[in-house]
Amino acid sequence: MQITKRTVSLWILCSLLAGCAGTASHGRAARQGGKPNFVVLFADDLGYGDLSCFGHPTIRTPNLDRMAREGMRFTQFYSACSVCTPSRAALLTGRLPIRSGMCSSRRRVLFPNSRGGLPAQEVTIAEALKGQGYATACIGKWHLGHRPEYLPRKHGFDHFLGLPYSNDMDRVKGSPRGRAAFLNPKIEYWNVPLIRNEEVLEQPANQATLTKRYTEEAERFIRENADQPFLVYLPYTMVHVPLFASEAFQGKSARGLYGDTVEEIDWSVGRILSTLKSLGLDQNTIVFFTSDNGPWLPYGTHGGSAGLLRMGKGSTWEGGMREPCVVWWPGGIAKPGTVTQELGSTMDIFTTCLSLAGAAIPTDRVIDGVDLTPVLRGTGPSLRKSMAFYRGTELYAWRSGSFKAHFITRGGYGQNKPVKHDVPELYHLLHDPSEKHNVAKDHAEVLARITKEVQQHRADLRPVTNQLER
Amino acid sequence: MQITKRTVSLWILCSLLAGCAGTASHGRAARQGGKPNFVVLFADDLGYGDLSCFGHPTIRTPNLDRMAREGMRFTQFYSACSVCTPSRAALLTGRLPIRSGMCSSRRRVLFPNSRGGLPAQEVTIAEALKGQGYATACIGKWHLGHRPEYLPRKHGFDHFLGLPYSNDMDRVKGSPRGRAAFLNPKIEYWNVPLIRNEEVLEQPANQATLTKRYTEEAERFIRENADQPFLVYLPYTMVHVPLFASEAFQGKSARGLYGDTVEEIDWSVGRILSTLKSLGLDQNTIVFFTSDNGPWLPYGTHGGSAGLLRMGKGSTWEGGMREPCVVWWPGGIAKPGTVTQELGSTMDIFTTCLSLAGAAIPTDRVIDGVDLTPVLRGTGPSLRKSMAFYRGTELYAWRSGSFKAHFITRGGYGQNKPVKHDVPELYHLLHDPSEKHNVAKDHAEVLARITKEVQQHRADLRPVTNQLER
Repeated sequence: MQITKRTVSLWILCSLLAGCAGTASHGRAARQGGKPNFVVLFADDLGYGDLSCFGHPTIRTPNLDRMAREGMRFTQFYSACSVCTPSRAALLTGRLPIRSGMCSSRRRVLFPNSRGGLPAQEVTIAEALKGQGYATACIGKWHLGHRPEYLPRKHGFDHFLGLPYSNDMDRVKGSPRGRAAFLNPKIEYWNVPLIRNEEVLEQPANQATLTKRYTEEAERFIRENADQPFLVYLPYTMVHVPLFASEAFQGKSARGLYGDTVEEIDWSVGRILSTLKSLGLDQNTIVFFTSDNGPWLPYGTHGGSAGLLRMGKGSTWEGGMREPCVVWWPGGIAKPGTVTQELGSTMDIFTTCLSLAGAAIPTDRVIDGVDLTPVLRGTGPSLRKSMAFYRGTELYAWRSGSFKAHFITRGGYGQNKPVKHDVPELYHLLHDPSEKHNVAKDHAEVLARITKEVQQHRADLRPVTNQLER
Repeated sequence: MQITKRTVSLWILCSLLAGCAGTASHGRAARQGGKPNFVVLFADDLGYGDLSCFGHPTIRTPNLDRMAREGMRFTQFYSACSVCTPSRAALLTGRLPIRSGMCSSRRRVLFPNSRGGLPAQEVTIAEALKGQGYATACIGKWHLGHRPEYLPRKHGFDHFLGLPYSNDMDRVKGSPRGRAAFLNPKIEYWNVPLIRNEEVLEQPANQATLTKRYTEEAERFIRENADQPFLVYLPYTMVHVPLFASEAFQGKSARGLYGDTVEEIDWSVGRILSTLKSLGLDQNTIVFFTSDNGPWLPYGTHGGSAGLLRMGKGSTWEGGMREPCVVWWPGGIAKPGTVTQELGSTMDIFTTCLSLAGAAIPTDRVIDGVDLTPVLRGTGPSLRKSMAFYRGTELYAWRSGSFKAHFITRGGYGQNKPVKHDVPELYHLLHDPSEKHNVAKDHAEVLARITKEVQQHRADLRPVTNQLER
């Protein structure tokens, strides 16, 4: 089947009808228990070990810790890729980036000279929720195509304020070379624009105030849309290098500048939750907090920590793709303060939100996300039983239940010696979360099962245009 | 000054008088706000990253997590050595093991054929508290000398139930050799005795029920002594290999046998706290939970995890000596749920307990512990500003404030290539808790300060008999 714009429109129409036929009503219902609101707080390059509630010794995150106490903390939650662009594409579409063409083994993310972007025929969470009467905002880093046809308002968002791509792009000629600019960053070294909808507001963006301005924008949007269901997608620009914090946070963390930026994000989370509470929306709003990929380790103390996990950003080891994740939903989470070991993924945010909003899950394409509602409500285990680990367009590893098989291994960002394994390396991730002890020789049956699952997965793949190589 | 038995007796008499001259009274006063009770829960080989509240993804520790929420969690708390015997000597005496002769670079701990033990002239926390009318019990692994003259009742404890040394000693001839016995352990492979006071109760000890029996013994002791101040020192035999859990915990943890044993200790902690609450002692009891040293990494999944810290047991890297630490004191901790970055050490437990009990701190010898009460009460910073990292009798590293200098480095247990550094390696532990980025070249002034502190420290050392080489 050829997927076209028309298919998408048809699908939106169908899901609109499905929503109307459901029990929930629109308008002011959001405040009174109708369709729930969704807030997706998405940090950039934050490591598994970088929050206090995930064990960091010197970064204080009282708001995220409280969010976890009042909500649920996932200890086995994955992003769908270890770098920015594909990870974001997956979150917004509920699909592995290999399906949308938003990953490449050569150019791993979109760059200012890229011509591609998230294809129009992809259905984003924002498009699907718009079909259910949601107000939608994207506030933060986009990185899914900066040409006009790819910007957030072309993908279901009513509003956009943020950067078109990463804050380390548009490097100014004459600024210090190599890592030096990052380790002692100044605003003027990067000419990255801040955009409202399609207009450049500021260039270079004053990166030091971005977390603060994103937060204020999100609060304003929530207040203005409190009487209807809404989606706020807030992909922070931080803690991606170059690091910047606003004046109130500079030099305040024991962890140095990296800690300052994490602590400012923590402040932001606290502000968003307070706003929801003050508007009486807390019982009917689900807030997700997670990160797009693991810490960027080559940047020294300007990169984060994956805690006990192996490697970081760019890698298909756990440190590259397992993320800190906290979900807050006072009206829905059965037992506040639960720490769950159930599997989850950023792609599941798509399916969970659509399900809770009464939107039909697209059936004309493969959706990789699952509905996490049973986990959140405490009524059942996760429907997620496996996870694919792609590096670009190559499948490097596969998790099935407790085990993860690596077909190809290599280090993190910039470490370029892939090793193909005739017998995959196999790790029991529950016993050995640090992936230290290869148990392949003891578990031929697991390797056989994984081989079968991978075959099924590959059979579902369809050729698509590679958007990152355009 | 020659320290003799008489010096100790005199000191105990003095502190007894000091106590009587103080405000607190004995007898039933403990229940009504008199001298506080102390419970020291001391795991064996538990890693910094092995509790849920310190970030472990698959070990559930709901009781320790709650203890932290109701109490205080220390993220920079140290044992005084990276192996058992010296670490325990330091906790009980408030002194670095180099001062008591309880450390050696050749035989790092006491073995069944050792003839030495904690010298009589050392003042233990139990002796000091007995001088204040405390009932005292040692329940668990001793490992400070198994000859009659060194057992707990010779060191101020009224009662003792436990093992004289580590559970991996007294290996039975004919049991599987090398690591095999540990990775598939059976009770009968080790002939280690369980002792009550000075009598052997059981040999080999049924290690599977030790955590349970220690817990029940501690609960009984607390109930029987609820009307007077008491000290319970409970050094668990677990999670030192060989690992054993009681039937109720076998196979229950997602983390495998190692997780089972941690979760049984967590259960034990819950039981102790419940007992204290049910007896109305919770407002006036301080419970410390920590570990003697880092995880024993060469044992694969039978060893724990130091989380984001470098190396483990046996090492002077942070993974060897920084421990998870939770303190519970509902009547004293100003703000429940505080996560503190203040420095602490097991040696500080000695000084803190003596201070709170109104006992005089010995002045005839160097005491390395500091009183942590200001940290617990939230009235001031820690008095601890530095930490010594000894491997046996050699000073390998020194922490001063945020920085740690390594004069000699090597790996963990069994990794035997020491490297002496002409210019010490220097790490900023707040910015770089994983000790990855040597910043010595940028901080000559810190190295100079540390050199001075180490000189002062060395000037305070006195020659003593090495107890581990006897």
